[in-house]
Formats: sequence, C-alpha cells, structure tokens
Amino acid sequence: MEGDAVTIRDVAKLAGVAVSTASRALGNGSASAKTRLKVQQAAEALHFVPNQAAKQLTSGKSNIVAIVATEEPDFVFHDAFISGVVSQLATSFASAHLLPFLVLTQPHDAKGFLKLLNGSGAAGAVIVSFHYTKTFADAVKEYGKPVVFVGHPHVSMHYPYVDVDSYQGGYAAGELFAKHGRKRIAIVEGPTDMLTPQLRTEGIVDAARQFGCEIIGTVPGEYSIEHGERGMREILEKHPEVDAVFAHSDDIAAGVYRTLHTAGKRVPEDVSVIGFDNFQTAGVLNPGLTTLAQPLPAMAEAATGMLVERLETGEWKRRAVLFPARLVERESV
Amino acid sequence: MEGDAVTIRDVAKLAGVAVSTASRALGNGSASAKTRLKVQQAAEALHFVPNQAAKQLTSGKSNIVAIVATEEPDFVFHDAFISGVVSQLATSFASAHLLPFLVLTQPHDAKGFLKLLNGSGAAGAVIVSFHYTKTFADAVKEYGKPVVFVGHPHVSMHYPYVDVDSYQGGYAAGELFAKHGRKRIAIVEGPTDMLTPQLRTEGIVDAARQFGCEIIGTVPGEYSIEHGERGMREILEKHPEVDAVFAHSDDIAAGVYRTLHTAGKRVPEDVSVIGFDNFQTAGVLNPGLTTLAQPLPAMAEAATGMLVERLETGEWKRRAVLFPARLVERESV
Repeated sequence: MEGDAVTIRDVAKLAGVAVSTASRALGNGSASAKTRLKVQQAAEALHFVPNQAAKQLTSGKSNIVAIVATEEPDFVFHDAFISGVVSQLATSFASAHLLPFLVLTQPHDAKGFLKLLNGSGAAGAVIVSFHYTKTFADAVKEYGKPVVFVGHPHVSMHYPYVDVDSYQGGYAAGELFAKHGRKRIAIVEGPTDMLTPQLRTEGIVDAARQFGCEIIGTVPGEYSIEHGERGMREILEKHPEVDAVFAHSDDIAAGVYRTLHTAGKRVPEDVSVIGFDNFQTAGVLNPGLTTLAQPLPAMAEAATGMLVERLETGEWKRRAVLFPARLVERESV
Repeated sequence: MEGDAVTIRDVAKLAGVAVSTASRALGNGSASAKTRLKVQQAAEALHFVPNQAAKQLTSGKSNIVAIVATEEPDFVFHDAFISGVVSQLATSFASAHLLPFLVLTQPHDAKGFLKLLNGSGAAGAVIVSFHYTKTFADAVKEYGKPVVFVGHPHVSMHYPYVDVDSYQGGYAAGELFAKHGRKRIAIVEGPTDMLTPQLRTEGIVDAARQFGCEIIGTVPGEYSIEHGERGMREILEKHPEVDAVFAHSDDIAAGVYRTLHTAGKRVPEDVSVIGFDNFQTAGVLNPGLTTLAQPLPAMAEAATGMLVERLETGEWKRRAVLFPARLVERESV
C-alpha cells in the first residue's frame, strides 16, 4: 500500500530539476527563488510531505486525530459555528495528511469520550469550545495527549487555543453604535458560563463607557434564534426605549429581528442591531446584518497547524492564535 | 473506573426484589408479568446492560463504532439527509452503549478511510449511502468488519442495509398526481449513479403507465436546491406543458419552487409538486410541500440494532430493513 507514496523523485521530475536540487529547494538549502517556487508548486501538486516527522505521521497509526464538540449531536450539526469549524477542520487536517474523526458520544458521557479517544489511538484532539463541566475537564486531563481548543477554553483549563478577539469585537460594536448616535444599548448574550460571551459583553460595556452610551439591559442565554426572540421580548417589555441591540451571534440576531418585526419596530430606523459570526444567515436577513466576522477557515487552519507542530516537534510552537473580529457593515445600524 | 458500573444487584434493589428474581425476570426465566415489568423499568432507569455480549462491548475497546459518509465534509454538515441520519445514529448508538465517531477523511481518500477505521479499532461501521467508486468499495471490503448501510448500497455491494422503499414512494407520488388529474409529469432526479434515485423514478414511471399519465422529461443531477432550479428551467424550456413535477428530494423541490415562481407559474394551480424526505424544508416552503417521509429516527435505530445484533451474536439477524415512504399531504398537489 505504501508503494504509491510520493517521493522527492516524483517532485523533482515534475519540477524538471535534479533530485538534489529539489531536496535543497524544499529543505531551505541554496536554490534560486524561481527554482524554489517551481519545486514547491510541484510538491504541492503531488501532496508531497517533505518533513520527516510529518512523513512518520502519515505512515504509522498516529496520524489519527479527534475532533470533539461536546454538545448534543443535533446541535453539532445545526449550529453554524460548530458545523462550520468541524468541516473546516476536516479539510485542513486532510491537507496536513492527518485522518480526522468527529467524536459523537453524548455530551454528558465523559467516560465514553475518554474511552473513545484512548481506544481509537488518536494522536491528539481539537476541542470545539463547550459548556464547562468538571467531569469533562477531568476527562480531557486524563486523556493526556495534545489538545488544542477552538474557542477559548474555560479559565481553569490551560490549553493552547485559537479564537477571535471577542473583547475587541464587542468594543467595535459599541463604537459603531456610538458613531451612529445610539445611546441605549441592550445585549442578548450567549451562554455566560463560557468565557467568549463574557468577553463580548465586557468589550461593549467598555466602549459604551468610553463613548457615553448606556447599557440598559442584558439577557444571557444560548446561541439560538429562539433565545434571540425571547431575549428581545424581555428587553422590549422592560426597556421600550432601547435603540441598539448587540446580539452575541447571528442566530440570536435573527431572533431579535423577528421580535422587532412583530413589535412593529424597524431595523435600523428604530433599533440598530449588530450580530457576531458573519455566517450565511447574516447576509440572508433583511435588512442585511452588520456583524463581526469569525474567520473559520483561518481558525481551523491555525488549530491544525498548532497540533501538527506539537505532534512533529513534541512542543507547542504557538500557545494561542487570536484573530481580530472583523466588522462587516451591512444595513442594520 | 468500572467501580461504578451498574450490576444486577442495583437493579434488584431499585425494583425491590431479590437478586435471583431480577436475574430470572431479565433472563426470560419464570417471573410474573408485574415483576418482569418492575425489573425491566429498574434496569432501564439504571441503564443496566443485561446481555453478556453487550456487557463485553461496554467494557472492552470493541464498543467503538464508525459512522461513514464519504462526501465533502461541508456537504455532510449541510445535507439534511446525511446530517439527520448521522445525528440520529449518534443518539441510537449511545442508547446501545456504543461509542460512535464520524469519519471525516476526504471522500476520495479510500486509503485514509481504511487506515482510520483499522487504526481506530472500530468494531463495525454504519455507512451512509454514497456515490459509488470501485476504490471505496474495495476499501470497505478490505476493512472486513461488520458494516451496515443506511440507504441501499450499490448493487454490486452485498451488505446489510436500512432504507425507505423508494420504488413504493415514487409509485405513490404518481398515483397522487393521477388522482388530481395531472397528466404531464416531469422528474427532477437525484444522482442516477445511485440506486435510490433509480428506484424513485421506476416507481413513478410504473404508476404513470398504470394511471394513464405521461412522463414528459427527466433531469438527473444531485440533491440540491441549485439542481432543482436548473432542472426546472430545463423542463420549462423543453416542455412548457408540464403540469406535475416529482422532485427526488425536498431540497430539489425548493429549487423547483423558485424557478416556477420566477416563471410566473403557481403551485399547485399550474404545476403540482411532490418532494421526498419530509425534512424541515418541506413545511417551511410556501405552499407547504406534499412529500414522502423518510423516518430517520426509525432508520437510525434499525441500523444500530442490526449492527449490535451482529456484534453480539456474530451473525446478521436481519439483512435489510425497508420502511415505507409515508405520503405527507400538504398544499402542493
């Protein structure tokens, strides 16, 4: 089965150079920029894996990696963030010649999770940020092999991670509301037992203070359309004077839109809305949702890269990669 | 870690009977119906696994099972059939005390697929029906451990499977069109390299013959909204006299609706439409889509049950389970 593995010979042949030249070009030895490019392109076209350690990974059993999202399977498949991250991870792991699988044990079954990870011989895991439980945290600890989180892990869990800068995103939302003369901001939050929603709220609270706006109410909950609907109803009842809403996800924003529509309030004339994610929903909503983009492909690639580095070298070259949350302005502010 | 495993003692205690009585009641020995019920309820409440083989499954490494859908990861997460089947399988495997994972290798990477399945020590696999390739069929063969398909496998692959009766569903669609006086039926098909779409078409073709309708055109393609749009455009160009469309999936039907709307045709006044799946889309469409329901939870449970039987007893107790495609009438015919 290994007979059809791509060798440096194949790369050299495709690039039209000598084997020694190809080897130098890929190994950062002396080679002209033009030759290096040609060889690199050939290596890429052939999916050649130059690094010794990476090569080892693709030959042994240890190139299996786990993707973990400890949520109900139904939620894993329907939540835009989780399903987006997992499918991007699948792609970036494939490019790194790793074999990913998605853990589908029940979220409360920490014992099963551990058994699956150990039993499957996974060399490492990417964990998509989750509702913290001590049992699960203990299971991750017991697993012992390298793990990297997508989404900042619970503050008590000191693992490498990839995330967007939620604080900065929240701050940017507050700044934009202020720029448009909005004064009375409400927040429909995600689950505040997780760090990310806390940071999004801290960011906009600080911006509101800086720019002289008031935070008139916050409703914690979950990343869902239903929570957006309910949360917005609660806000309208208690604070009908609201003129801006920061939704912690695009899905929440979709629910906020619904309730505002039912209440006869116009977006953005009566109430401005900013979401978070910039997934498909954001562009589909009417009016188009101004939101903060999470660069899922880049995040997945970074998480994969960090794990590969750790597996190849035995140490973490990067402990965390934080991407800016990019403001995408549409028509909702 | 096995210290907290539930034993027959716990079951007896909860049921308020002697251990020997509990054992007899669960082992189909002599026990009154009332006692048996009490013990069974206690066993269920405690998630007690009475069967020796199943017990073994939960104690050893062999309770890991793989779920395979050899499609692009993005498609796996967005296709309503695949994502629905996989999340139902995750649930039903958990009830059977098995630890499922989803294979996330690239669809063309049969070698990686095989390595992941063997490397992970999976005791068996459920494969969600796929585009046939010889390479992949060979990999499944080489895997050698028990597999069951959801969706009839390619005719050359003789594996146990669970499916809905696509022929009967197609026939029912044709019968309903005829009942409503429709005469000129077009079909926007799924991928006709797979058996399921072929059977759906055969069913409606036979019904059309039986009830004196004409099949004026078929457009093969894929299970997507885009194919529905394109397919319907093609039909309208060649056969503007069309008065009924059978879409091989609800997603295809959604595309058919779009094109009909753009062309100024009303559903069902000008053109009747029937879909297949009865997933979320069907009820959301306007007018509500008449369609043929695939009972995903029952299908997932059957596939799990078949695999568990095979793992426990070493033989297939059931080779196939076929569910009827139930006609769900809304407003589109």
